[in-house]
Amino acid sequence: MRAAVLRNGEMIVRDDVPDPQAGFGQILVDVKACGICGSDLHFAKHGSTLVRLIRSMRGGPALGGSTVDVGRDVFMGHEFAAEVLEVGPDTQGPKPGVLVTSVPVMVTMSGVQDLAYSNDLPSGYGERMLLAAPFVLEVPNGLDARRAALTEPMAVGLHAVNRSAIAEGEGAIVMGAGPVGIAVIAALARRGVEPIVASDFSSMRRDLALRMGAHHAADPAAADVFDAWDEHAGGRQPVIFEAVGVPGVIDSALQAAPPKTRIVVVGVCMGDDSVTPFWGIAKELSIHFCFGYELEEFSDTLRAIAEGEVDVDPMITGQVGLDGVAQAFEDLGNPERHCKILVTA
Amino acid sequence: MRAAVLRNGEMIVRDDVPDPQAGFGQILVDVKACGICGSDLHFAKHGSTLVRLIRSMRGGPALGGSTVDVGRDVFMGHEFAAEVLEVGPDTQGPKPGVLVTSVPVMVTMSGVQDLAYSNDLPSGYGERMLLAAPFVLEVPNGLDARRAALTEPMAVGLHAVNRSAIAEGEGAIVMGAGPVGIAVIAALARRGVEPIVASDFSSMRRDLALRMGAHHAADPAAADVFDAWDEHAGGRQPVIFEAVGVPGVIDSALQAAPPKTRIVVVGVCMGDDSVTPFWGIAKELSIHFCFGYELEEFSDTLRAIAEGEVDVDPMITGQVGLDGVAQAFEDLGNPERHCKILVTA
Repeated sequence: MRAAVLRNGEMIVRDDVPDPQAGFGQILVDVKACGICGSDLHFAKHGSTLVRLIRSMRGGPALGGSTVDVGRDVFMGHEFAAEVLEVGPDTQGPKPGVLVTSVPVMVTMSGVQDLAYSNDLPSGYGERMLLAAPFVLEVPNGLDARRAALTEPMAVGLHAVNRSAIAEGEGAIVMGAGPVGIAVIAALARRGVEPIVASDFSSMRRDLALRMGAHHAADPAAADVFDAWDEHAGGRQPVIFEAVGVPGVIDSALQAAPPKTRIVVVGVCMGDDSVTPFWGIAKELSIHFCFGYELEEFSDTLRAIAEGEVDVDPMITGQVGLDGVAQAFEDLGNPERHCKILVTA
Repeated sequence: MRAAVLRNGEMIVRDDVPDPQAGFGQILVDVKACGICGSDLHFAKHGSTLVRLIRSMRGGPALGGSTVDVGRDVFMGHEFAAEVLEVGPDTQGPKPGVLVTSVPVMVTMSGVQDLAYSNDLPSGYGERMLLAAPFVLEVPNGLDARRAALTEPMAVGLHAVNRSAIAEGEGAIVMGAGPVGIAVIAALARRGVEPIVASDFSSMRRDLALRMGAHHAADPAAADVFDAWDEHAGGRQPVIFEAVGVPGVIDSALQAAPPKTRIVVVGVCMGDDSVTPFWGIAKELSIHFCFGYELEEFSDTLRAIAEGEVDVDPMITGQVGLDGVAQAFEDLGNPERHCKILVTA
């Protein structure tokens, strides 16, 4: 079958990928839509750094990439919706033709393995893939595959908001309105948090932030987001979401945060970062790093999208086939053009 | 009167400091004992950096040093016990001769001002000083001034433990067994936390950690503290207290911490530090920066010391007069000799 794979830092299309076969506990699906995630762009550029960081970490969870060999082809694509083709032997699962999605995790006798950043398991940037039957969710309400594919990134936002334990009377500052920041904004808006003050250098992203539920969107080039907060928050205490993920942003939050503030880091910064602990100490700040989501957050997000509580449509700014993946990786570098590009069958 | 002051990075003794006069709301006291704090050593070495950090911080609380001119003499010494000499006019306060202590804060019409790192207000390294009447606590139970002077640093440990929200069934790793780490260990032990696994390169400090309540003390030069934890904790989840306060320690905690761990930063690292956010993200760690204590924590600590719940005696490793302060600042650089040196009258 065909699949776009990462080879030597470039996305190329192979047509000789062995057809996956559904074994016990597995479901073979036909991928209908798969979102391109910023993590995939990071991995394409910094895969070996990431693998080194994972391997040098003590006591970490099993993570996609921990066993990957970046010298071989790497399968990626973990934000997918797909149609069931075949349920494995002795396995319970939806009927063929049913649209499903799943957390990107495969279960094997040796444990769980992420369905992305693998040398062996085809993932969402391929024609077909295997899912773990226990994690497969039917897409309800006739939701189409394009929107259903947004479940995964939107669940990341819900998880960050849950982890923040944002309370009645608190507002939110969301630094960065890329796909992660937008997912956070959508989850905050769904919870009724007010105000939500977002910031991004891109006017397209600021507009999208407002459409997705932010009350104000500041341009850091023109005005500090904390000034915008002071102007709009009416003395409320903010929770700060760091959804930029580049070096220096955590430190700028430490410098500017009001005393006793929680800084929720949901942007993934690779490599080293420089911080000034004294600012955190003097103001008794806390930093809460976030990763992924719980199963319940994933299924709740799918339900919320399917029932129209969250309209993800404005986030979808592009659509390509497998042959367009390499160009899409390039295009996503321009924040004025894109939020989420889907790879569709 | 006489006072040791910081002048051009050196501690010198002046005998021409104007005698403080108790005004309304103030109490004039005769300083009997004052502990030398690591923050004072930091300030002597890095005072101008600290002032720059405070002034470049947005939204911070009023902090000692924020208005100080390091080009002029600086009064320090914020861990004191003293005898009441005179209560200001129209002011309620203990009778002369009563031993008291206080949080190191002066109240004025223009707000609160820290009783340390000031160009104007004499503090604990002087013969006499003024206290704010509302914050003065009588030392109970006949506790002597030397032990009462330990109230302030021990309250820092209690505050860190309270802020950690350490729960039933959790143990603690305390990185660093200087005065701050020891205060954390004492507060953990008082709460019955088990196990408490400490680490320090100094054998004297490891011994002190064990005397003050740690169950195990690891030498990082010989064995990783997280290995010691794995060996002694019986599968419990630790809360990690970072009480070293030098660059790199927060990052080593991020690297080694088990998933979902809270890292409580109570060591004050001046200047920049380098961290690897990815480790925090992949394991969903959180960092809780701590500073100072609440009034209730200060008074509870005084009570605990006075009632013998915490024996601070092993921490007192030296005693000097005002003329010995400069040498004591030097001596405290050697972790094999000292924990806390008191300046006594």
